[in-house]
Amino acid sequence: MSDFKIIDGKAVAASVLDEVRAETAELKARGVTPGLAVVLVGEDPASKVYVGAKDRTCRDLGLYSRKITLPTETTQEELLAVVRELNADPLIHGILVQSPPPKHINEEEIIRAIDPRKDVDGFHPQNVAKLALEDPSGFVPCTPAGSMRLLASAGVQTSGAEAVVIGRSMIVGKPMALLLMAKGSDATVTVAHSRSKDLPAICRRADIVIAAVGRPEMVKADWVKPGAVVIDVGINRVEDATAKNGYRLTGDVAYDEVAPKCAAITPVPGGVGPMTIAMLMKNTLQAARQLTA
Amino acid sequence: MSDFKIIDGKAVAASVLDEVRAETAELKARGVTPGLAVVLVGEDPASKVYVGAKDRTCRDLGLYSRKITLPTETTQEELLAVVRELNADPLIHGILVQSPPPKHINEEEIIRAIDPRKDVDGFHPQNVAKLALEDPSGFVPCTPAGSMRLLASAGVQTSGAEAVVIGRSMIVGKPMALLLMAKGSDATVTVAHSRSKDLPAICRRADIVIAAVGRPEMVKADWVKPGAVVIDVGINRVEDATAKNGYRLTGDVAYDEVAPKCAAITPVPGGVGPMTIAMLMKNTLQAARQLTA
Repeated sequence: MSDFKIIDGKAVAASVLDEVRAETAELKARGVTPGLAVVLVGEDPASKVYVGAKDRTCRDLGLYSRKITLPTETTQEELLAVVRELNADPLIHGILVQSPPPKHINEEEIIRAIDPRKDVDGFHPQNVAKLALEDPSGFVPCTPAGSMRLLASAGVQTSGAEAVVIGRSMIVGKPMALLLMAKGSDATVTVAHSRSKDLPAICRRADIVIAAVGRPEMVKADWVKPGAVVIDVGINRVEDATAKNGYRLTGDVAYDEVAPKCAAITPVPGGVGPMTIAMLMKNTLQAARQLTA
Repeated sequence: MSDFKIIDGKAVAASVLDEVRAETAELKARGVTPGLAVVLVGEDPASKVYVGAKDRTCRDLGLYSRKITLPTETTQEELLAVVRELNADPLIHGILVQSPPPKHINEEEIIRAIDPRKDVDGFHPQNVAKLALEDPSGFVPCTPAGSMRLLASAGVQTSGAEAVVIGRSMIVGKPMALLLMAKGSDATVTVAHSRSKDLPAICRRADIVIAAVGRPEMVKADWVKPGAVVIDVGINRVEDATAKNGYRLTGDVAYDEVAPKCAAITPVPGGVGPMTIAMLMKNTLQAARQLTA
């Protein structure tokens, strides 16, 4: 088997963004401009890049974007005050505090302070509960939402399929499992993790593999059943002397050896990555709609 | 294999109740009497039995019990008003509205109206989120909490074990899966359900089977791996002409044929059933402690 399908995250993200652009235009015609506020505390270079990309994507699509950059020494109280102002601001429908904040910040408390109706990251407990309770008014975290969309775009039947999610974080693993097992998706879902015995054997059962552990190229060819669909959520930097900046990006899946066994697979980069920002835009649109309904 | 262990839910429940009795005495010595309010709307005979048992167990353990019975024609607004009064009542630490209420009642809205700090059933979205987020200040639904306790009492190692949960309800299946996969429990968890393909094969992988589907004797001997541990959450009434009231209770597991293959199994009745009320008492104690801390 080697005519595997590469699931093109850039292309799918572009079509999601086209939807958002069109729906934004409609909303604007009704007098509502969806607005996203992204708060960056400190100087983390990767965070700066992400925040910049979110800001640019908003502008490109016609959303209102507000980028708030705060110094590293911002206190918890100051950050809470910023969140509360954004909660009250009628121009803002989505609020995101870029993770990770500096170490002295209690991130959980910040998340709980965000108005759940504006929590476009989907991390507020109220949205976590809505996901578990299959209440569509909640916001689904962007990365698992994007992964589901990639499965749909590739025509993958989830109903009755065996899905194995490797990783049990609240950012990806658990929400992904909840989405896959929800009514309508109807997959048989196994959540495996660092304490699982014989991960390769568990993974080999899967019709759909979701790798979300953050360990470069952990999933090898002999972990994957021929004809499986593989969604690689990992984005790991590994040193590479031949690369111009000294590193390259790699997923949690050993792509070169796994891909030929798959029916379909997402590459890294260019797979799940571009979907995350696209789903954030979609969530912001949903927030604007729900808040102005 | 036939020297399987019958996990004695009555005995484990009795020891949980002994803990609650002792801790209640301590709390009372500090001036706090844990109080549980159980609200019954209508005349459902099974609900009457359950509510009576909860009331008696409270009294027996030294908790303050308030049983509120309301007529079938109670309106949503009237029931909400009762809940709000109980929310505000300092003598009451736990509130439970017996399920199912009459059909004209919106049960979800009632659950959301309960102060989450008094939601000893663990069904309020805030407690659902705490379970997913592994926040121990939340209340865990009584049946899955009781099932976890039965596993612990039988000395079952969950870490690295393969657990298969059959059923994906928010009352049992999903919370059970979240408990089993949480840090500290560390099981590899598969959630299977009516849409799963080849349930017997999925079930045969399990070191731990949790049957929570509500289909009498669905799990057969050839579904179970020799040496597995089986927790049968089902309580089904099946017609039985030889029984004096015309029916008998049976679980989701074909006990007679499955038990000899197991390392350990819960019977029905006398397995998970008695644990549910015991864990309710434990949750009420936790509520009293947290509210008076």
